[in-house]
Amino acid sequence: MQIDIEAACGLLQTHDRIVILVHQKPDGDTLGSGFALLYALEQLGKTARVESPDGFPERYQFMYGGYKPKEFEAAYVVTVDVASPQLLGRLQEAYKDRIDLCIDHHKSNELPARHILLDGDAPAAAQIIYKVLRGLGAKIDKPIANALFTGLSTDTGCFKYTNVTPDTHRIAAEMIEAGAEHGEINKRMFDTKSKGRLAVEKQLLDTLEYYFDNQCAMVTLAQELTRQYGVHEDELDGISAIPRRIEGVKAGVSIRAQEDGAYRISLRTGEGVDASRICAALGGGGHMNAAGCTLTGTLKSAKKHILREIEKELERLAV
Amino acid sequence: MQIDIEAACGLLQTHDRIVILVHQKPDGDTLGSGFALLYALEQLGKTARVESPDGFPERYQFMYGGYKPKEFEAAYVVTVDVASPQLLGRLQEAYKDRIDLCIDHHKSNELPARHILLDGDAPAAAQIIYKVLRGLGAKIDKPIANALFTGLSTDTGCFKYTNVTPDTHRIAAEMIEAGAEHGEINKRMFDTKSKGRLAVEKQLLDTLEYYFDNQCAMVTLAQELTRQYGVHEDELDGISAIPRRIEGVKAGVSIRAQEDGAYRISLRTGEGVDASRICAALGGGGHMNAAGCTLTGTLKSAKKHILREIEKELERLAV
Repeated sequence: MQIDIEAACGLLQTHDRIVILVHQKPDGDTLGSGFALLYALEQLGKTARVESPDGFPERYQFMYGGYKPKEFEAAYVVTVDVASPQLLGRLQEAYKDRIDLCIDHHKSNELPARHILLDGDAPAAAQIIYKVLRGLGAKIDKPIANALFTGLSTDTGCFKYTNVTPDTHRIAAEMIEAGAEHGEINKRMFDTKSKGRLAVEKQLLDTLEYYFDNQCAMVTLAQELTRQYGVHEDELDGISAIPRRIEGVKAGVSIRAQEDGAYRISLRTGEGVDASRICAALGGGGHMNAAGCTLTGTLKSAKKHILREIEKELERLAV
Repeated sequence: MQIDIEAACGLLQTHDRIVILVHQKPDGDTLGSGFALLYALEQLGKTARVESPDGFPERYQFMYGGYKPKEFEAAYVVTVDVASPQLLGRLQEAYKDRIDLCIDHHKSNELPARHILLDGDAPAAAQIIYKVLRGLGAKIDKPIANALFTGLSTDTGCFKYTNVTPDTHRIAAEMIEAGAEHGEINKRMFDTKSKGRLAVEKQLLDTLEYYFDNQCAMVTLAQELTRQYGVHEDELDGISAIPRRIEGVKAGVSIRAQEDGAYRISLRTGEGVDASRICAALGGGGHMNAAGCTLTGTLKSAKKHILREIEKELERLAV
């Protein structure tokens, strides 16, 4: 059942021993939302913990340095930024049939939960959590401000994307006033590249190919490449967006060889070009401007297949 | 004489035939500030124009599409975001001794002007101009919102830098409400790379060298490289920041061969490392974390000289 902020606050206020679940491969928004909510519930004197299917990454330690979840029998289960049961990863078994409250900003949310607080117009789950915290009467202290700021900033590409709302900026302003170390956080999140990441980018640019009058750009990432440079999965974030960012490119493809020999295709498209249609034709799916599919066979055939579908879509648009 | 917002508004209100000057190699902040002020003065029924020492770049056409400055005898001269007479470029002759009002956010401002409205804590001149426009009672319409948003966003690396204030975010929120095409502007400013730029980046990464236990990273940009790819100066913005962004790097050097055979060194440093001290030792100068110098001789000797000074500074810090 869909509920509003006030109802969600009422539920959180009447329950205790609360477990907050974040999604697998946790990012700044799910972690920022989870920890901001945790800190607020603790302010209210509640017993609570954050659980993650994939641990608590080093990259976001500044939000929860050395966090150890409290042990207790869960009485109320809340998810933050989790759009589907699959995204609970290894926590699915334990929790997927007993989610009490789902707080999310993905329009596509399909998590089974007793109550759902969904705002598909919020660019980050942290924007909803901020309102929940206000409803709970929590004091926005520095740890909460850092967590919410990180959620807002990371899910919007540092306030860059179109889905940023006036509220996003206003909440950011308030978090800075509450002590969020915004400059330091942004620098860490957006301005630092590892040596390995840079080496991968260089190799990636070596594979850059243009097709269809430069309307399509393609890069290929070899499986061994990431191993060779000791690059962690985290560090490859955003790699698939590189070809799309080239001026004039309407369809940006990145092909990544998988361990099993298959090829994972990520497609990012510009206005009007339907990435989800293109990938659906090859057994994949996604959104209008970001979709993917997995192809078996040789690299050459994978390229041929995806290029053929892109060509069809570009021709459809040109008519 | 230093004045406040109210006094500046009073001056603008009592004068007419106003010329607004922007700085050479105009960027998003000087142009956004200039055009926002122009549109506001025109709302008040005044005759005004923006003058630029280097024209009105294609990149910012969305703010002033096909702008033609009105011809009239200047009766009042205002500069926006111009920190020194030199930055007026070819307009120095005509205007440097008759600047009535200087509006700027550079603490180092040394422009001779009758009245100076300076806020060294504003991360963008546009943040001051917003307050001036409010003081003038201007209606923040879409063209003004786009211009001010562009100024705020471009001078802060899309709200990334430490000097962003709560006001910056609050004004951004208001500009979005007033119709600023924030997503489109940010995409153009921050998410689009030309093919030439990308090719230059790739070549640049080929030259990447590490020194002093990876505390120093260096790239070299050959003179012919930019010519080879037909890359315009505008497109090289931020190139010199690349080595500094590598994790663990405290001193990032980019060396650019000049037409006259000399080498222009740009140095970006991390906390504690004094870039201005390093460059001053080689006859250059700048700020704590961003400085430069020009060296003659061979590339090899240029590298040797800058590396020796960096080593001294790193050793000084290690003591």
